[in-house]
Amino acid sequence: MPKMMKAAVFVEANRIVLQDKPVPDVGPLDALVRLTTTTICGTDVHILKGEYPVARGLTVGHEPVGIIEKLGSAVEGYKEGQRVIAGAITPSGHSAACLCGYHSQDGAGTRHGFRAMGGWRFGNTIDGAQAEYLLVPDAMTNLALIPDGLSDEQVLMCPDIMSTGFSGAESGGVKLGDTVAIFAQGPIGLCATAGARLLGATTIIGVEAIPARMEISRRMGADHVIDFSRKDAVDEIMALTDGRGVDVAIEALGRQSTFEAALRVLRPGGTLSSLGVYSEDLTIPLGAFAAGLGDHRIVTTLCPGGKERMRRLMSIIASGRLDTQPLVTHRFKLEEIEAAYDLFANQRDGVLKVAITP
Amino acid sequence: MPKMMKAAVFVEANRIVLQDKPVPDVGPLDALVRLTTTTICGTDVHILKGEYPVARGLTVGHEPVGIIEKLGSAVEGYKEGQRVIAGAITPSGHSAACLCGYHSQDGAGTRHGFRAMGGWRFGNTIDGAQAEYLLVPDAMTNLALIPDGLSDEQVLMCPDIMSTGFSGAESGGVKLGDTVAIFAQGPIGLCATAGARLLGATTIIGVEAIPARMEISRRMGADHVIDFSRKDAVDEIMALTDGRGVDVAIEALGRQSTFEAALRVLRPGGTLSSLGVYSEDLTIPLGAFAAGLGDHRIVTTLCPGGKERMRRLMSIIASGRLDTQPLVTHRFKLEEIEAAYDLFANQRDGVLKVAITP
Amino acid sequence: MPKMMKAAVFVEANRIVLQDKPVPDVGPLDALVRLTTTTICGTDVHILKGEYPVARGLTVGHEPVGIIEKLGSAVEGYKEGQRVIAGAITPSGHSAACLCGYHSQDGAGTRHGFRAMGGWRFGNTIDGAQAEYLLVPDAMTNLALIPDGLSDEQVLMCPDIMSTGFSGAESGGVKLGDTVAIFAQGPIGLCATAGARLLGATTIIGVEAIPARMEISRRMGADHVIDFSRKDAVDEIMALTDGRGVDVAIEALGRQSTFEAALRVLRPGGTLSSLGVYSEDLTIPLGAFAAGLGDHRIVTTLCPGGKERMRRLMSIIASGRLDTQPLVTHRFKLEEIEAAYDLFANQRDGVLKVAITP
Amino acid sequence: MPKMMKAAVFVEANRIVLQDKPVPDVGPLDALVRLTTTTICGTDVHILKGEYPVARGLTVGHEPVGIIEKLGSAVEGYKEGQRVIAGAITPSGHSAACLCGYHSQDGAGTRHGFRAMGGWRFGNTIDGAQAEYLLVPDAMTNLALIPDGLSDEQVLMCPDIMSTGFSGAESGGVKLGDTVAIFAQGPIGLCATAGARLLGATTIIGVEAIPARMEISRRMGADHVIDFSRKDAVDEIMALTDGRGVDVAIEALGRQSTFEAALRVLRPGGTLSSLGVYSEDLTIPLGAFAAGLGDHRIVTTLCPGGKERMRRLMSIIASGRLDTQPLVTHRFKLEEIEAAYDLFANQRDGVLKVAITP
Repeated sequence: MPKMMKAAVFVEANRIVLQDKPVPDVGPLDALVRLTTTTICGTDVHILKGEYPVARGLTVGHEPVGIIEKLGSAVEGYKEGQRVIAGAITPSGHSAACLCGYHSQDGAGTRHGFRAMGGWRFGNTIDGAQAEYLLVPDAMTNLALIPDGLSDEQVLMCPDIMSTGFSGAESGGVKLGDTVAIFAQGPIGLCATAGARLLGATTIIGVEAIPARMEISRRMGADHVIDFSRKDAVDEIMALTDGRGVDVAIEALGRQSTFEAALRVLRPGGTLSSLGVYSEDLTIPLGAFAAGLGDHRIVTTLCPGGKERMRRLMSIIASGRLDTQPLVTHRFKLEEIEAAYDLFANQRDGVLKVAITP
Repeated sequence: MPKMMKAAVFVEANRIVLQDKPVPDVGPLDALVRLTTTTICGTDVHILKGEYPVARGLTVGHEPVGIIEKLGSAVEGYKEGQRVIAGAITPSGHSAACLCGYHSQDGAGTRHGFRAMGGWRFGNTIDGAQAEYLLVPDAMTNLALIPDGLSDEQVLMCPDIMSTGFSGAESGGVKLGDTVAIFAQGPIGLCATAGARLLGATTIIGVEAIPARMEISRRMGADHVIDFSRKDAVDEIMALTDGRGVDVAIEALGRQSTFEAALRVLRPGGTLSSLGVYSEDLTIPLGAFAAGLGDHRIVTTLCPGGKERMRRLMSIIASGRLDTQPLVTHRFKLEEIEAAYDLFANQRDGVLKVAITP
Repeated sequence: MPKMMKAAVFVEANRIVLQDKPVPDVGPLDALVRLTTTTICGTDVHILKGEYPVARGLTVGHEPVGIIEKLGSAVEGYKEGQRVIAGAITPSGHSAACLCGYHSQDGAGTRHGFRAMGGWRFGNTIDGAQAEYLLVPDAMTNLALIPDGLSDEQVLMCPDIMSTGFSGAESGGVKLGDTVAIFAQGPIGLCATAGARLLGATTIIGVEAIPARMEISRRMGADHVIDFSRKDAVDEIMALTDGRGVDVAIEALGRQSTFEAALRVLRPGGTLSSLGVYSEDLTIPLGAFAAGLGDHRIVTTLCPGGKERMRRLMSIIASGRLDTQPLVTHRFKLEEIEAAYDLFANQRDGVLKVAITP
Repeated sequence: MPKMMKAAVFVEANRIVLQDKPVPDVGPLDALVRLTTTTICGTDVHILKGEYPVARGLTVGHEPVGIIEKLGSAVEGYKEGQRVIAGAITPSGHSAACLCGYHSQDGAGTRHGFRAMGGWRFGNTIDGAQAEYLLVPDAMTNLALIPDGLSDEQVLMCPDIMSTGFSGAESGGVKLGDTVAIFAQGPIGLCATAGARLLGATTIIGVEAIPARMEISRRMGADHVIDFSRKDAVDEIMALTDGRGVDVAIEALGRQSTFEAALRVLRPGGTLSSLGVYSEDLTIPLGAFAAGLGDHRIVTTLCPGGKERMRRLMSIIASGRLDTQPLVTHRFKLEEIEAAYDLFANQRDGVLKVAITP
């Protein structure tokens, strides 16, 4: 009889429930990780609400911190008992997409090797991290050792929030001395702000209306924070930049209003770096787009994964350049995960991120 | 009394008329060029129709080939009598935009140095090239000597058509072995096709419905030409690429339908390189955009200008790698320019480009 | 008793001998390929002469064309009987180096994931391709299907010669309209010449002294070929470029003289792209290096591998853009490989490359 | 009779002397700047010693801070009385080199537009900044307004030291989470250290032996500082990186020993970014270079100039991200400049940089 574990399972729209499931078998390229900490993502809330479809019975979650319990027969270079994380995105390493550098669009198993969002497997196409145990596929590509001295909570943002947020600044091509605006200062936007700061931007403008988020925005690196509920963000940014606009605008919400505002504040030749997950068609306003003649770029990025990305992010934490622990505002046991969803989905009590411990 | 010349002048919507104007005075940084050949651009037709606003009385046209008649007092490195071209875009060289590499968004004269499309001056903000003489501003940045042995018509596409078309492939980041689709095979799209070929794409797909353009598309480098009036271009391209989609899609028309089709055929991680001049807001379809998670890029480019760009383009012609003369389908005297506009604006008689000789 | 096969084995300096060896066992991630064609590389000659150390008893060769005989238990996406090639470099796909895009410096199995030249395994650290059967490691990363209609000899240059030669032009950043000089027109230099041509260089200068190679250089894309035995190559190139120098200089021999000449002909801000395998310390002449102030770049590249690289190279062949078959000047049976080494190592009879068929 | 001024003039080897010279005439594209602060560079010491040749009678110095006294007739966008700096490198903006983005290799006036180090004019090919007045050529390309609230000394490092030092990190392609070693912690090396920090490197290793410089190295951003007089720097760096080596090594001295050490500590695929001014041929050791097969890059950079570069650097100072004033250790009147040279050339009294005020 298989060993059993607790797992947060998608049952139907508006029902993610803690259930008993068998601890998974370990294939030759896999690793079984005993989870010590995980968290809930905004995407999980979309799943909860039935807005993003996943199979019934799937374990949810894609942000794992844990300990190697068992290694597949073909896995080399690791030992059981090591503390590890894996990215939210777990590329195979061998698809055409991976070999071209598009690990998040991994199409392993397709004829041609590309699949949109194909690198996102945990809690999407395979069982995820809100459980006692997690099966990590392609373990040699994905398991990253946690440096000595870092706690679970210190690295909990690495698998998704920090990787995604930073990629907004990186894909935007932020350069020394740039002016950068970040639209929305939720966990992802806050990490985009921190990323712009780490890359040497010198005028960083956060756009947000929730006071607690406005405050932490400054701590994460914003030089200015605009309360869009009181002032027009586009006007304010154009005034702050003396009419020039920003070099890079980062969209971190996934709405038409923020996408459009990001385009409106771009200088000619600027880059709109989009992180948001949109839920409807987007409109590009003709004027803000200079009718297609403004040398603008719009770039989108799905959370970069893989063990080397995780190593780099943890090295940033270890070096003391950034502390993401202030983003963890609430803590729950895995047994209480339904309450955690309730708090997080309804954005109660100033929640930014929750830590879940099995 | 000033010397007089003939010039094609925008009088009002639907009236571009040949008029007498004084030959311009030459400032210290300028050069006066006696035009020997010029042409009409699709943009000039927008001006003619009143769809793109310019000042009444402005001389139209931005594609000059000619001979240096007189040099400004501060201009060094040229001699009167030399055969030259200048790009459609004539950057100053000294604005912040130029120093950042965005010469087409030159904001010389602004506080901060950026202005959308600011590098486009001929026939837009200053008198243009459909005349007997043309005053070239910032001559040291913009005058490019025509290599010996090249005729006017051989270099006539360099100032705009070839520079713009090629930039579609360059900004798209076409790599050796790429698959590229180009939507519309007018003069710009044909040069984008040629550019993709020169950059080493190995599967080049043109989309067009006019038989003569389909034929020349193959001559310019297309491996496949899809007649979108008979078959669905998106379906055909997905079939040709075995479901993978293209690495780079180039939009060369300026319409929602082609913009959208270009996005639909992109592989995850692909680039939509947009050359079209749009006349209304654009819509990004959610699915084709993978909800913002497909690592897509949308890049726009305004015709690169400046003398070094022109030198490079003419070196391509001189090397025999590409012959753009087949694009010149009709020839007119400057005196007949109104007839030339009539033919070109109405796309009669299989016209691609006209050569106008003062 | 294991099935036996013939293999060309390094016995000691100056002795590579055809021997009987067991057909290898197939591990879970491996594929066994029955070779149909292979070839000898200049590097194999270094091994033969004892200049590059490999283990005694190792099978030599790293350029395989063949048919899948057997797939490892964890290998998906292939079928036995498919015609395939693998690159000379067979990266794991999962090391830190691979995840950073440095597949050739793959350090799978090291603590940190980088090892200089670590991606080169065939005929270096594991048994190679001059045999009847070849075990391909990390098969899902490395096996590339041969497109229908291409013969073995048509794709025989892809695993190494074409991949390496092209990378000289790619790493050099060749742009449309560039001037490029390639020093030495052996098989690698010829492919670098073809690569520069495919990338849109418009003045391509080959440097070579063997008449037959000078002639094929023009066929592969050179506009000028300088016989360095009659004229000083540096002087000639500076004269051809009107004193400007070249945008990119490619070194394809591995000698101080060519490395130095490549640096001397670079324009300020130019790139020296080095492909040669050197056998002694190199000297950078102070003047040619502008004392370190010329914005020069020196880049080195080891043959890019992996199945996606191979797919792209074969697509270039399939598209008809380039035919590398003229490089195959001689043909031998595997039984005759010792004679093939004798011919090739001594560069007799105008040999460029030999095809070896088991 | 022309107005006269004091200027530090190169008379002969080992003699830079304060002399009377006429205040220069202002050409149409020039600006005359009344200097308020300047400094002495290591390059000036090479000039003093006769190691770098300049014309006798030339005014030395290339790091100006001052006030616009008079503008040329064709200069627009500035007013007399504005506080400005200009870069050590003053590109024309219009040469082919500038239009390609190689402003430091500006060949304005040459046939083809490239000249090694051609952008360096002050105190090299035209009169420099150690004087009461300075004629700035191509003023619209080069004059950068000092932001309100910044003192002369706060921006004094921008024209050369900070621009050069930062470019070492930028040209090296430093990425988030990189490990970077900087060889020598003089003023340039210290700014390279600060640049690597601003770009997000997380392990920054300075190499230096002078205690005061080791201390300031930490303040500028180094995580580790190795005293190479006590320990072997290569061994230490390999130990600190667990055998992996560094992603980027910056050479900031101009000696064979540091160049070689920088190469020895590079990981495969790493970049050696060279800032030093060398005085003899360099040797590339075969092993450190992986015989040319390590995917290494060696890049050199001459101080980036132009007003936009200066604006960005001053924005970094204004934002509080970096304070370079600690580099100014001594202050002199222009009248005392010979004493300043004596102190600086002999590196007495812990001098890093001197401020000279006319």
